[in-house]
Amino acid sequence: LKSKLPRVGTTIFTRMSALAQAHDALNLSQGFPDFAPPARLAEALGEHALRGHNQYAPMAGLPRLREAIAQQLLLHRNVLVDPETEVTVVPGATESIFCAITALVGAGDEVIVLDPVYDSYEPAIELAGGRAVHVPLLAGSFAINWERVEAAISPRTRLFMLNSPHNPCGSIVSRADLDRLAVLAREHNFYVCSDEVYEHLVYDGREHCSVLAHPELRSRSFAHFSFGKTLSVTGWKTGYCVAPPALTAELRKIHQYVAFVAVTPVQHALTDFLEEQPQYPASLAADYQRRRDLFLSTLAGSRFSWTPAQGSYFQLLDYSQISDEKDTVLSEHWTRELGVASIAVSVFYESPPKQTVLRFCFAKSDDVLIEAGRRLCAI
Amino acid sequence: LKSKLPRVGTTIFTRMSALAQAHDALNLSQGFPDFAPPARLAEALGEHALRGHNQYAPMAGLPRLREAIAQQLLLHRNVLVDPETEVTVVPGATESIFCAITALVGAGDEVIVLDPVYDSYEPAIELAGGRAVHVPLLAGSFAINWERVEAAISPRTRLFMLNSPHNPCGSIVSRADLDRLAVLAREHNFYVCSDEVYEHLVYDGREHCSVLAHPELRSRSFAHFSFGKTLSVTGWKTGYCVAPPALTAELRKIHQYVAFVAVTPVQHALTDFLEEQPQYPASLAADYQRRRDLFLSTLAGSRFSWTPAQGSYFQLLDYSQISDEKDTVLSEHWTRELGVASIAVSVFYESPPKQTVLRFCFAKSDDVLIEAGRRLCAI
Ligand SMILES: CSCCC(=O)C(=O)O
Ligand SMILES: CSCCC(=O)C(=O)O
Repeated sequence: LKSKLPRVGTTIFTRMSALAQAHDALNLSQGFPDFAPPARLAEALGEHALRGHNQYAPMAGLPRLREAIAQQLLLHRNVLVDPETEVTVVPGATESIFCAITALVGAGDEVIVLDPVYDSYEPAIELAGGRAVHVPLLAGSFAINWERVEAAISPRTRLFMLNSPHNPCGSIVSRADLDRLAVLAREHNFYVCSDEVYEHLVYDGREHCSVLAHPELRSRSFAHFSFGKTLSVTGWKTGYCVAPPALTAELRKIHQYVAFVAVTPVQHALTDFLEEQPQYPASLAADYQRRRDLFLSTLAGSRFSWTPAQGSYFQLLDYSQISDEKDTVLSEHWTRELGVASIAVSVFYESPPKQTVLRFCFAKSDDVLIEAGRRLCAI
Repeated sequence: LKSKLPRVGTTIFTRMSALAQAHDALNLSQGFPDFAPPARLAEALGEHALRGHNQYAPMAGLPRLREAIAQQLLLHRNVLVDPETEVTVVPGATESIFCAITALVGAGDEVIVLDPVYDSYEPAIELAGGRAVHVPLLAGSFAINWERVEAAISPRTRLFMLNSPHNPCGSIVSRADLDRLAVLAREHNFYVCSDEVYEHLVYDGREHCSVLAHPELRSRSFAHFSFGKTLSVTGWKTGYCVAPPALTAELRKIHQYVAFVAVTPVQHALTDFLEEQPQYPASLAADYQRRRDLFLSTLAGSRFSWTPAQGSYFQLLDYSQISDEKDTVLSEHWTRELGVASIAVSVFYESPPKQTVLRFCFAKSDDVLIEAGRRLCAI
């Protein structure tokens, strides 16, 4: 049996969460909150199931949810979208990213990805017959190296994968980055697939720059969002994709045969919540910034070094003062020996640089963050 | 923008359900029950959400659900499977069928499909770079024409798509069919993708023949199942795929980057139900047979002709005595004018035969079936 993805194993998130569980470690590896989502959500889920909302929703999502999404984009991004032709509700942003890549990329096409790169993009590109062209982010700042991006563009470049706030790095793009990208996209006629699932998690007064708010990128981008991240229900596996009508039409052609539709009572519960508490997502940044700062404060006396995450719920820690072991080895070692699970960043590179950083998820309750910090200080 | 699926529009199910809604027609087009699922399910869904089961489940599905699935297969099919390495919980059988096709089919590979064929298979085959080779089922009986299947096999044949109980025809395969398929699969070394989502809906004392119960096919098949169909919750979008470990490993490599995982509280609720009422699926056949017979009895005085469905919740009706209009035209016409929506069967063929049949879903409440029958008799 010849594998279609010969270089792929089980995702690092699955492996590290399993290892964490096996060793009863604090799981700061896989990105998910260990605290409860807003109570209203769980309540609404049960209500809708009991009220009989248990059969297929329309393929593109419940009209009332797409309407609520359009309201959210207006409220938080000042962006106007047409819920009918531009919004598609999906069973998680992973699915819509897969569908967007599949819709655009064909045999021989090239897709620019920025390393370290979220692990689902390249398999989707390969399965579509395309090739990922890896451009590393700048060492240290994890900002985009536009010279190298330009050098990587070819006549075969079809798509550019953008991810801000960035997973695993926690960096964010600026308006200037988007301007630069827009010029290149126009000049070389490629599309943009923008993974913005951590859009509401940006810190220290920064703002999220969405491709949807960029007049030029808007017309050539798929933007992907996640209720799992925004409403702390990663296990509800529901997100949405916004794109201009022509792109949305191609996305839906694929989506309807990949997963067809997202879960109906979940869609209703999410809608109720967004209708009742439309401002809620704006409260996330302060809450997560507090968690980030709590986690970092516990490390004050340690030999780790860091730049505080600009966004996302991931904090990178550099351990060069502590060890010169490989990050993959160390993350497993510390999961077993310290009881703190993290994610090695090198696994997200085509050619990992000499770099000694681990990713820690701080979407965790205070006591977990404090105890993780205590254990990490003991090294 | 060059489409990856140039011949594909919006699925017929989406279009007909929308048309039914627009004209306030009885919707016997899209396959979903209009009655409530077992009450325990909705209750359990709310409970698990409230108990905090809202973050990612393991990628292959909750261990307790995979265990319950193994128990179901033992109980209803007398089949032993390893929940760890052979069962994958997925966000709907559509997704696992997509993943199985993607895992096996590469550029230039051929896949045998039997017309009329469920509409999601061919786009998946095409996106994987393969080609669907269409073999029509026998006219009238909709049994498999094995001579034509043999003639269609080539050295490039990689996969055979089996679907029993059959959608849209309601026919089922026999043990002899499976034996015949097993010989061909061995001789020509191809795999089988078996869509068995209506497994529990077989009538008049017949039995469902699963590839899992066939010793030879078992080792070269993906079998796909649907809780949506078995527990009357199509909107919960959860199913599972059973395959030998080597095939399961390849399926999961794709699944983890396509949708990653199914919804956590849904998985828990399904598990509770299966643990508490393991025999429930065995009660479905009698219930649906009653609905089929009720629907057909209302048509006794009409000029439709039919063979009662052997399985699935779809009944074909031949209208040759009534009209020689094309089925696509007639299904839309009757949706508008009679207020009864159905699905034209010709849309599932590469080359539709001269044939005058429509598909009616009888997973509907008695009054809907009776009223639909009354309207159809009035023609
Ligand atoms: C898809 S499971 C992992 C969640 C996640 O995106 C992460 O941990 O980075
Ligand atoms: C995927 S939506 C349609 C449900 C179905 O399988 C059918 O109506 O045949």
